[in-house]
Amino acid sequence: MPQPDVIQQPGAVFTTRTPRVVAARRLQRRRDRDETGRFLAEGPQAVREALAAGAVVEVFCTTDAYARHAELLQRVDRVSAVDDDALAALTETVQPQGLVAVCTQRDVPLADALRKAPRLVAVCADIRDPGNAGTVLRTADAAGATAVIFAGDSVDPYNGKAVRASAGSLFHVDVVRARSAQATVDALRDAGLRVLAADGYGESDLFEMSDLDRPTAWLFGSEAHGLPDDLKHAADARVRVPILGGAESLNLAAAAAVCLYASAKALKASKESM
Amino acid sequence: MPQPDVIQQPGAVFTTRTPRVVAARRLQRRRDRDETGRFLAEGPQAVREALAAGAVVEVFCTTDAYARHAELLQRVDRVSAVDDDALAALTETVQPQGLVAVCTQRDVPLADALRKAPRLVAVCADIRDPGNAGTVLRTADAAGATAVIFAGDSVDPYNGKAVRASAGSLFHVDVVRARSAQATVDALRDAGLRVLAADGYGESDLFEMSDLDRPTAWLFGSEAHGLPDDLKHAADARVRVPILGGAESLNLAAAAAVCLYASAKALKASKESM
Repeated sequence: MPQPDVIQQPGAVFTTRTPRVVAARRLQRRRDRDETGRFLAEGPQAVREALAAGAVVEVFCTTDAYARHAELLQRVDRVSAVDDDALAALTETVQPQGLVAVCTQRDVPLADALRKAPRLVAVCADIRDPGNAGTVLRTADAAGATAVIFAGDSVDPYNGKAVRASAGSLFHVDVVRARSAQATVDALRDAGLRVLAADGYGESDLFEMSDLDRPTAWLFGSEAHGLPDDLKHAADARVRVPILGGAESLNLAAAAAVCLYASAKALKASKESM
Repeated sequence: MPQPDVIQQPGAVFTTRTPRVVAARRLQRRRDRDETGRFLAEGPQAVREALAAGAVVEVFCTTDAYARHAELLQRVDRVSAVDDDALAALTETVQPQGLVAVCTQRDVPLADALRKAPRLVAVCADIRDPGNAGTVLRTADAAGATAVIFAGDSVDPYNGKAVRASAGSLFHVDVVRARSAQATVDALRDAGLRVLAADGYGESDLFEMSDLDRPTAWLFGSEAHGLPDDLKHAADARVRVPILGGAESLNLAAAAAVCLYASAKALKASKESM
């Protein structure tokens, strides 16, 4: 049952002009996300994952959504009722399901992520499309990667579209942001990871790789230009997903799924045989 | 070098009000695509692939684009110069690269596609997002599938966004549209294909499948609801891509990439050992 007293200003329903709503809405801009270290996550699934990760600062919801998600929202310290216009202003989807959370960004330094001795890592270098960034996060998480590194001039992983495409995985993995892709490759190798560059023209065929059961970091480049040359050459090998039909290439997210799952399968088999 | 006389109305540059441009523009609507059996494909890569497939009816291009792509356009029977506004009206991308082709739709009846004894087929059932439909087409083509079937209430594969996401693969594979998904499964099985349903809750683990080297048709369901129950049960097995991390599921295009490439690898290995 809804517990109206959990809504912190009894009787007050925030509008688009309420200062707290105005402040939260600014998090749709990268500059404000960078300055505050916060971001927005929409819908009950994201709120649930954010709560599990201890990342929720506050939640705005309609009174209808409060009634539907009372159990979930009782676990949030600060819940505020908003009118429909305020909810629409805070969200970007057509059906935001009535609630949106302000969350703290979850970046960890690369050294912290590597200290956990990850066996599978994804590195996104210069990825510009937020939907692709979020999809790679989701796929990497599903494949058992424990860290996803956004290197170089990549999109902000806390962009609203990236958050939605990640479907909660942003809250599961170590998110690392690294300015220098080259220094990242060095650090990955120092941590005992083999560094493989996904490259449509790579000299190694993914199907022929025999030692994918070693701890591996996969490098994925931009949608338009692939990996920059220096990064390709910094990797231990350049691996192509073989193209068996008439297509010229795979798109980024599909190539990442095939590569990460090839590693996942080999790593799982080696773990089970130990 | 540009050959101005190839532009069929010398001196005439079509505008948004020229009847042929008006007629072509209507192909942005599904109803008009369905009625005419035609669709639009933007950019030089798509025109090249459409030409190779014998699917080009005519091309509209700016005079600038004509100069850049003269060699390509000399292979087109009917090329018309359009002004920038007309090109913008005919295209949906920010940078359409100055040319757009009217193409004939390439559907073949299911029986024709199956007569070629395909070893890998993708079936999209009730897929609604045109970007996903195009991406699955591209990935299926890359994995060596020779037919992609859009069954049930799927999006129109000739939708502009689907055409762009397919990156030319729409012109490489047999595109089949089938109203009844159930009848499609029966026909696939009669043609000797094993029918596997991609299902996040399937009883078979993709990593444990030992006989992916048999000719296979993969069924993929909608983004929101997965496969309908009757189709799941009509398949020979329900196969899940194992989730090794915290993610709840993979998105449709990623799951399709992993499944199709698992088959591609097994089929390639079995072919090589023959």
